[in-house]
Amino acid sequence: MAFDAESLARDILAGQRRALSRAITLVESTRPDHRILANALLERLTPHAGNSIRIGISGVPGAGKSTFIEAAGLHILKQGHRLAVLAVDPSSAISGGSILGDKTRMEELSRHREAFIRPSPAGKTLGGVTRRTRETMLLCEAAGFDVVIVETVGVGQSETAVADMTDMFLLLLLPGGGDDLQGIKRGIMELADLVLVNKADGEMAATANHSASDYIHALKLLHPRTRNWQVPVKTCSALEKRGIAEAWEIVCRYRQVLTESGELAQRRAQQAKSWMWNETAESLLAALRQDQRVAQLIPRLEQAVVAGSLPPTLAAAQLLEAFLHDDRLSD
Amino acid sequence: MAFDAESLARDILAGQRRALSRAITLVESTRPDHRILANALLERLTPHAGNSIRIGISGVPGAGKSTFIEAAGLHILKQGHRLAVLAVDPSSAISGGSILGDKTRMEELSRHREAFIRPSPAGKTLGGVTRRTRETMLLCEAAGFDVVIVETVGVGQSETAVADMTDMFLLLLLPGGGDDLQGIKRGIMELADLVLVNKADGEMAATANHSASDYIHALKLLHPRTRNWQVPVKTCSALEKRGIAEAWEIVCRYRQVLTESGELAQRRAQQAKSWMWNETAESLLAALRQDQRVAQLIPRLEQAVVAGSLPPTLAAAQLLEAFLHDDRLSD
Repeated sequence: MAFDAESLARDILAGQRRALSRAITLVESTRPDHRILANALLERLTPHAGNSIRIGISGVPGAGKSTFIEAAGLHILKQGHRLAVLAVDPSSAISGGSILGDKTRMEELSRHREAFIRPSPAGKTLGGVTRRTRETMLLCEAAGFDVVIVETVGVGQSETAVADMTDMFLLLLLPGGGDDLQGIKRGIMELADLVLVNKADGEMAATANHSASDYIHALKLLHPRTRNWQVPVKTCSALEKRGIAEAWEIVCRYRQVLTESGELAQRRAQQAKSWMWNETAESLLAALRQDQRVAQLIPRLEQAVVAGSLPPTLAAAQLLEAFLHDDRLSD
Repeated sequence: MAFDAESLARDILAGQRRALSRAITLVESTRPDHRILANALLERLTPHAGNSIRIGISGVPGAGKSTFIEAAGLHILKQGHRLAVLAVDPSSAISGGSILGDKTRMEELSRHREAFIRPSPAGKTLGGVTRRTRETMLLCEAAGFDVVIVETVGVGQSETAVADMTDMFLLLLLPGGGDDLQGIKRGIMELADLVLVNKADGEMAATANHSASDYIHALKLLHPRTRNWQVPVKTCSALEKRGIAEAWEIVCRYRQVLTESGELAQRRAQQAKSWMWNETAESLLAALRQDQRVAQLIPRLEQAVVAGSLPPTLAAAQLLEAFLHDDRLSD
């Protein structure tokens, strides 16, 4: 298989899975020569990306995310779409890839040619993991996948990161336990564009309806993330494949409403710009932290700042001076 | 009056109001010579800062923030404290200082020698406004003010910024209209350590109690910001000065609980460290934006990124290269 950017790009545009997998591996690599190749590839493929609906999915532990994604995924394939399932899991560096690492979790879906499942890249920072997933999303789109699901494990700020790279954010909950939002972190509920109470089957069906009412009430107390969109709360059973088609219809309706209002294009433009600036800020800060002079200063400055003997502003100024060590700051 | 850092610092530590005002003006100035003096001053005074309880206050428009701060302020003074009231209003650059600019809003409080009221600094970015308010807080503490209230106008992310610089966040609401949290932005409710339903007087008293119940219910659906602390929801009437003493008691109890658990010290250490790194990241990005080579690139890169013809990662890499224009990146 080709290993130069041009041939690889061509193979990806032709929809070759192995080329796509290799490209993702390049994007995820930290080797400088891989990065150069990855950049060349992204430069070629980005103009061909973007033609998908990007769906972020999060949920409480035990909400049945994998089962839901499998059931929804099979339904989406049946509608004639090609589906990529990606993940953002900043804890995967420690846990060794806790979500989607085990393909058997979505056994049926992973056997389909029109589905592409990729575990979360490993990485020390959420920023690093997010960047690679964003880039992988572009590659998948260039390869012709027109539905992209980005799953998040729900650690730290990963939901916000996923909401910032997708068109729609779907929150998966369990029946019952509505009194404390089942351990959902602050702010997550407000990211949701669609709330699904899963496992609405058997004995839990009634509880699920009750929970849905609770969540509808809770959502009324919050501002919707999206203009022209009242966040629906529905029940479903991924196990019994009920409510899945309805959920997909809501996704399609959401996309239509936001496309017509121009909000989708606007959001994506904003996301792209933010991504550029976040990337710039992170790379810049990473370069600063890696600078030898700076690295020597950090422990002492942090200590002084915490002890209250040095104003943080001054500590920052010292870090900058050490990093830029030129006259740029006095311009 | 002295204009060198050493004398100014001495005068501030002696509690001279005019010296404090001048120091704040220095801190708020963008003139490089002022900044140098401000830094020298902060270096001297920071070790004397920190001995206050820092309270952030936000609320919906019309909730009666000024009236409440005046009533609470007078009560706080009666307890023998010295109170500084600051503000974070990133819109003040446009509006010309919309909050606290008009001292008559807190007429009675502003006449007291033991109270110090300062409007929001103007600034183009929230980061800039926040930094100056943080620095002003340190100056006020060094001048002996042992209670600092930071009011926020509630624009954009200003509440989060204020919560990040204070020990406790107080949210002021109105009776009624609980169904949509009265226009409170997503996430604000979750920042609250204390919720007060103001204007619980006259005909609104019963409605206020009803609203308080609604908010108690809503808060149950959210995770508390602070361990060991269940967010109280109370009614009050700043106009009739009812519920004010009770609110202050809650503030004192909060402080005690968090001091005993060690969480207050921990939070402040974390805040100081975050401040240092945020400051570093912002100054670094500001330096990049101001760089001539970079400034020439920005419009073209942003356009290409929004159009989808250039991956944001590559745009960021180009900005960094233009800024650092040396071999640092290839180290």
